[in-house]
Amino acid sequence: MKAGPSQEEIRRHNLGTLLRHVHIGGSMSRAVLAERMGLNRSTILGLVSELGAAGLVREELPRETGRAGRPSLVVRPESDRVYVLAFDVGVDRMSAARIGLGGVFLDRREIPVLPGPRDAGKVAEVLAGCALDMVGAARRGTHCVGVAAAVRGTVRRSDGLVRAAPYLGWEDEEFGEDLMRRLGLGLPVSVGNEASLGALAEHLRGAGTGCQDLVYLHGDIGIGGGVVTGGQLLGGDCGYGGEIGHMVVNPRDGRPCGCGARGCLEAEAGERALLEAARRDPSSTGREAVHAVVEAADRGDIVARAALRDVGDWLGIGVANLVNVLNPRTVVFGGTLREVFLGAAAQIRSRINRLALTASRENLRLRVGELGDDAVLVGAAELAFSEILVGPLETLARAGARTA
Amino acid sequence: MKAGPSQEEIRRHNLGTLLRHVHIGGSMSRAVLAERMGLNRSTILGLVSELGAAGLVREELPRETGRAGRPSLVVRPESDRVYVLAFDVGVDRMSAARIGLGGVFLDRREIPVLPGPRDAGKVAEVLAGCALDMVGAARRGTHCVGVAAAVRGTVRRSDGLVRAAPYLGWEDEEFGEDLMRRLGLGLPVSVGNEASLGALAEHLRGAGTGCQDLVYLHGDIGIGGGVVTGGQLLGGDCGYGGEIGHMVVNPRDGRPCGCGARGCLEAEAGERALLEAARRDPSSTGREAVHAVVEAADRGDIVARAALRDVGDWLGIGVANLVNVLNPRTVVFGGTLREVFLGAAAQIRSRINRLALTASRENLRLRVGELGDDAVLVGAAELAFSEILVGPLETLARAGARTA
Repeated sequence: MKAGPSQEEIRRHNLGTLLRHVHIGGSMSRAVLAERMGLNRSTILGLVSELGAAGLVREELPRETGRAGRPSLVVRPESDRVYVLAFDVGVDRMSAARIGLGGVFLDRREIPVLPGPRDAGKVAEVLAGCALDMVGAARRGTHCVGVAAAVRGTVRRSDGLVRAAPYLGWEDEEFGEDLMRRLGLGLPVSVGNEASLGALAEHLRGAGTGCQDLVYLHGDIGIGGGVVTGGQLLGGDCGYGGEIGHMVVNPRDGRPCGCGARGCLEAEAGERALLEAARRDPSSTGREAVHAVVEAADRGDIVARAALRDVGDWLGIGVANLVNVLNPRTVVFGGTLREVFLGAAAQIRSRINRLALTASRENLRLRVGELGDDAVLVGAAELAFSEILVGPLETLARAGARTA
Repeated sequence: MKAGPSQEEIRRHNLGTLLRHVHIGGSMSRAVLAERMGLNRSTILGLVSELGAAGLVREELPRETGRAGRPSLVVRPESDRVYVLAFDVGVDRMSAARIGLGGVFLDRREIPVLPGPRDAGKVAEVLAGCALDMVGAARRGTHCVGVAAAVRGTVRRSDGLVRAAPYLGWEDEEFGEDLMRRLGLGLPVSVGNEASLGALAEHLRGAGTGCQDLVYLHGDIGIGGGVVTGGQLLGGDCGYGGEIGHMVVNPRDGRPCGCGARGCLEAEAGERALLEAARRDPSSTGREAVHAVVEAADRGDIVARAALRDVGDWLGIGVANLVNVLNPRTVVFGGTLREVFLGAAAQIRSRINRLALTASRENLRLRVGELGDDAVLVGAAELAFSEILVGPLETLARAGARTA
């Protein structure tokens, strides 16, 4: 419990808040900003001028107003003055992007890889090379102000240590530190769990916009989860919160899970369970394989239908538990679970209706992710933008000093 | 995202923060307050003077210092200037208390009742009568600054509507409004879920002091739950979060639960399940009945031992799930689950070790509640203190105006 801030801290807070408003909400007039921030217009004018002078926002005529009369100017984020680097260390590909204020993708690269263990140093080397290429291609006078990477695994919040990422064969890897060294940009690299970052992304820019209590389930090789509660990402004690895929839903006769337990949601409702139940080639995994099962069920294939129903049942049980414990407003299905949800929505909903308390589920919305495959990268970018949205001018000054 | 506060708001915030420090932390020197609040000593002196003049804190010599030399004064909360009223509508008794700053019980009453449905109006009438009696007995010049009540059920955060409290036979009861009218003190009555308030109490004053991420499980007729994450009570979208007792742990062949579902944690590990498994008279419930099973197991009674093992298994599964989803630092067992935990700790711990992710559980502490039966009342009192800890002088002025 700290004391209230000083005048200077308030100024910085206000600059950061205004920048965050246009970064997340897009172009808006000074009048709207004044209302949302609870400040008078002259204060807003001062803040906009300061951010404008720094090149972080610009005032311009709105694209279209739909109203008669002279339109008022809108404040929009400058996507070309500062950017962040975002990485997603995926199962069968790695992605890197250079993303500007407002969440604009300025550059992006995809690196297909074979699923399976990967040397952490090699991953950092490849991603750093790719990123430095993007940095080199950026316009002169633009600054990198943050770097973040997403992995599918448990990541310690305090220092970004990757505690475990079985799909990569990683244990206690100082991946962020390594990536930072190889980038040589003088910026720390934040590392986060892929589904937590997906949750953040869908909360800020996707299916959960405006919703303060959200659960995000991300399917690919496993089932990752991220929880937003009261508008904040739930990290828990060390940042490992949100491991929804390892909630045990079938303790009595559950399938073995990669984590060593049995009956985890991931083991019962993950990609592998679906493909096995649908009697598909277990070596063919990934988006296409899941899609093929959903399509077959659509066409009336009985085995595929039963498989989807089974997986939908387990997902419904898992979501019902989360609804009782977390009372979210929105549950978002992303990654391959997007397809699964579309094929098993009725089953999932019916389980939730039977198992979740009436009060807890009555306003519940089930949604598919709106950001598609980009959710994780977008979330990583938001993590990387954290610093400039707290102290815009200081962060920019530091970036300028590094480049000079 | 609001703008930073005005000077006046900062002053109010600082007064509230200082009062909160001594209210929760007890007596402390101005030097310690200056350090914890990040303010200089002269500012602290000004704040203490203002709160002192209002009669909310007092400076005095510490009880004992253990150091040579002149001891410095400590600031302590005045427990006799303002108080709150706290109610707990329990299963087999109702409790009411008048509690002063610092969490001091100034007066308390217990009203034994028969378990079972109770008319909400009648409950409000009895509690109001009891409370007004305590108010009448209070010293002149002291003010009531908040009222809160706890029920075992789902309570809507926005207006305190009790959506469902099956043990009372309540559905959509405007209990808080009714109690407010009957009290006639001109103060709103906050209503909360008993286990959420228990979680708050153990977090602020009990087994979870200093811990920002805590799960509290409260056993009596059912299993209630409360979650504190990042130092905040997890309410979710409408305030129904924390219904841990209705997490389904045994979906395949679970026992029927009072909520209509099957295999809920409450159905598998609650009081009734334990007593049934121990082949006890199902009509004898409550603390004594649970205690008798634990004692019998201690003495080597095989049936009682098996019953405890079984219940411990399910509790372990439930807690493991919470550990994976929430990554708490501390899990606190309160109510009758205190006894159960003491009798089945090894079983619970072993399940958690098998089912929770290593990273998520490695710093986990399992604890019994330190506040015993008072946890719920203490939590209700903290809810009732919210207002004065945000704006001490304004709240006191309003209280004075009401009494005049």
